[in-house]
Amino acid sequence: MTPSLTEAVAQAWPPAEWRDVHLLAAVSGGADSVALLRALHKLKREAGGRGRLLVAHFDHGIRGVASADDARWVAELAEGLGLECRLGVAAGPPPASEQHARDARYRWLAETAGEVGARHIATGHTADDQTETILYRLLRGSGLAGLAGVPPHRPLTAACDVVRPLLEVTRAEVEQHLRALDQPYRTDATNAEPTYARNRMRNELLPALRLEFGEGVDAAIRRAGQQAGEAQQVVGELAARLAGEARIDGSPDEVRLSPALLAAAPPLVAREACKLAWRSAGWPEQSMGAEQWQRLYTLLCDAGTAGLQLPGGVDARWVDSIVVLRRTSAD
Amino acid sequence: MTPSLTEAVAQAWPPAEWRDVHLLAAVSGGADSVALLRALHKLKREAGGRGRLLVAHFDHGIRGVASADDARWVAELAEGLGLECRLGVAAGPPPASEQHARDARYRWLAETAGEVGARHIATGHTADDQTETILYRLLRGSGLAGLAGVPPHRPLTAACDVVRPLLEVTRAEVEQHLRALDQPYRTDATNAEPTYARNRMRNELLPALRLEFGEGVDAAIRRAGQQAGEAQQVVGELAARLAGEARIDGSPDEVRLSPALLAAAPPLVAREACKLAWRSAGWPEQSMGAEQWQRLYTLLCDAGTAGLQLPGGVDARWVDSIVVLRRTSAD
Repeated sequence: MTPSLTEAVAQAWPPAEWRDVHLLAAVSGGADSVALLRALHKLKREAGGRGRLLVAHFDHGIRGVASADDARWVAELAEGLGLECRLGVAAGPPPASEQHARDARYRWLAETAGEVGARHIATGHTADDQTETILYRLLRGSGLAGLAGVPPHRPLTAACDVVRPLLEVTRAEVEQHLRALDQPYRTDATNAEPTYARNRMRNELLPALRLEFGEGVDAAIRRAGQQAGEAQQVVGELAARLAGEARIDGSPDEVRLSPALLAAAPPLVAREACKLAWRSAGWPEQSMGAEQWQRLYTLLCDAGTAGLQLPGGVDARWVDSIVVLRRTSAD
Repeated sequence: MTPSLTEAVAQAWPPAEWRDVHLLAAVSGGADSVALLRALHKLKREAGGRGRLLVAHFDHGIRGVASADDARWVAELAEGLGLECRLGVAAGPPPASEQHARDARYRWLAETAGEVGARHIATGHTADDQTETILYRLLRGSGLAGLAGVPPHRPLTAACDVVRPLLEVTRAEVEQHLRALDQPYRTDATNAEPTYARNRMRNELLPALRLEFGEGVDAAIRRAGQQAGEAQQVVGELAARLAGEARIDGSPDEVRLSPALLAAAPPLVAREACKLAWRSAGWPEQSMGAEQWQRLYTLLCDAGTAGLQLPGGVDARWVDSIVVLRRTSAD
């Protein structure tokens, strides 16, 4: 009676693609990751293959005894399934932010994957996480790129990637599946990722939106995210080609660009190409926001524009018929 | 002390571009359209030119006496500014929906523009309207295209376009501007466009989001919309080129497509190209949703796929090495 979640995992990530390599399931002990582990375990048993399925749990040490209890609980779950379990504990003081906690967790997961030779790390992100991520990023101002949400696959290190086979499965389906399996889970396990605003989004904003716009609102948000991701990829490929054509060789601390090529391209593609050229110079991007990229684009379109001082100590100006970006100081 | 709104209008829509053609300002009597009219009037006086500025007001007849009062009020405002005013009244029963009311209003505006020879119809949509439109469409499931929001210019008829010079101006700035001018407006004037869900979005959802995410949330939504619009345009141009290349001549009730070209393109571009080919055949699009376009795309990518029955009585199937779409019935 509970094949649907397992089938969804098999469809999103066919066992034939991973049965012969080692796999690390990141398990917090919460419903999502426990459901993922049960599904992978079942599929692995059926598919066989040379690869091993292992469990990894990272204890952020934020919640004291409860954290240690979660770790023990996950270890027992793994043992019951006959799987090796790797436990990690955060070193030093508690993480300064959700982002730091997340970074520490992924660092440890990458290390552990390296130690056991795992090719993939599977995480339990669900369709609900995806909806929340897309809406959250939209409202925080991440633009089109952020709207794309989290990808189902992404490289983490040269040897290992992160896979999210539950991205098409809702949290309600996860809970229903676990009830049907009579599989308990840790309800108080902190995912460590949701911020305060994100929790309110999950517990207040999205329920209110479902009342107003119907249950389809989640899928509507994810569809926009999916299309934004596809559009971003199309734009990214055009931008990469354009950046290759528009970049002129110069000294290492310079980026020399052909403004004619950039100005002839669609503005979004030209701005993305500028980003790629900037990134290839290894310059800091953090302080370059939508407004700064627009200013640089405006300069490229008009030879009469005065020189620009951009963040990261980068100076941009017309020199004869090209535009030269030069890092004059590392501020 | 109140130059900013007028300057914003002049920047969004330089008087040099319209001073020599006739212009219809669509004025409901609400704050937005009254502020727009005052700004256009001032800019027109300064810029001169051969064109005339006229006022147009459409009475939907929905609110009885209050509607007629609004019409009279707008006529007096126009007279006070020395401008000709055209009044329209909805014929027949009250409109069945907001969309019908909107359609009737634009039909009348297009007719009136034709009568007076106006090249442009200017409407008072503000940045707040844009934010609400983008968020509303996202939540209603319109995908990337809807996220783009309303464009600052769009053709209405072959002879006339709609211009929205206030799209970068907030409602708060409009009200502040009118206070500074000591210019009254009709607070109860129904815009006729906002639906119930939209009113709640304006009065409840967006204020709650501003509390949670800060005042920047409006600009964040509009920036995503702007980028979605730019991406949509890039994708649209690629799709138009692809549709031209992939379409093979056939009989009038057929669309014959080269699947090899479509399957080699990014999926988003290929699906958009299918839409363009479908549209060029004049087939009904209403029942074709994201899922149906995806099914058609899947068919194009795999010669082994069985034929498809699509909405609008269109049958799609592989015939030798091409895919033939044929309208077999007009259901």
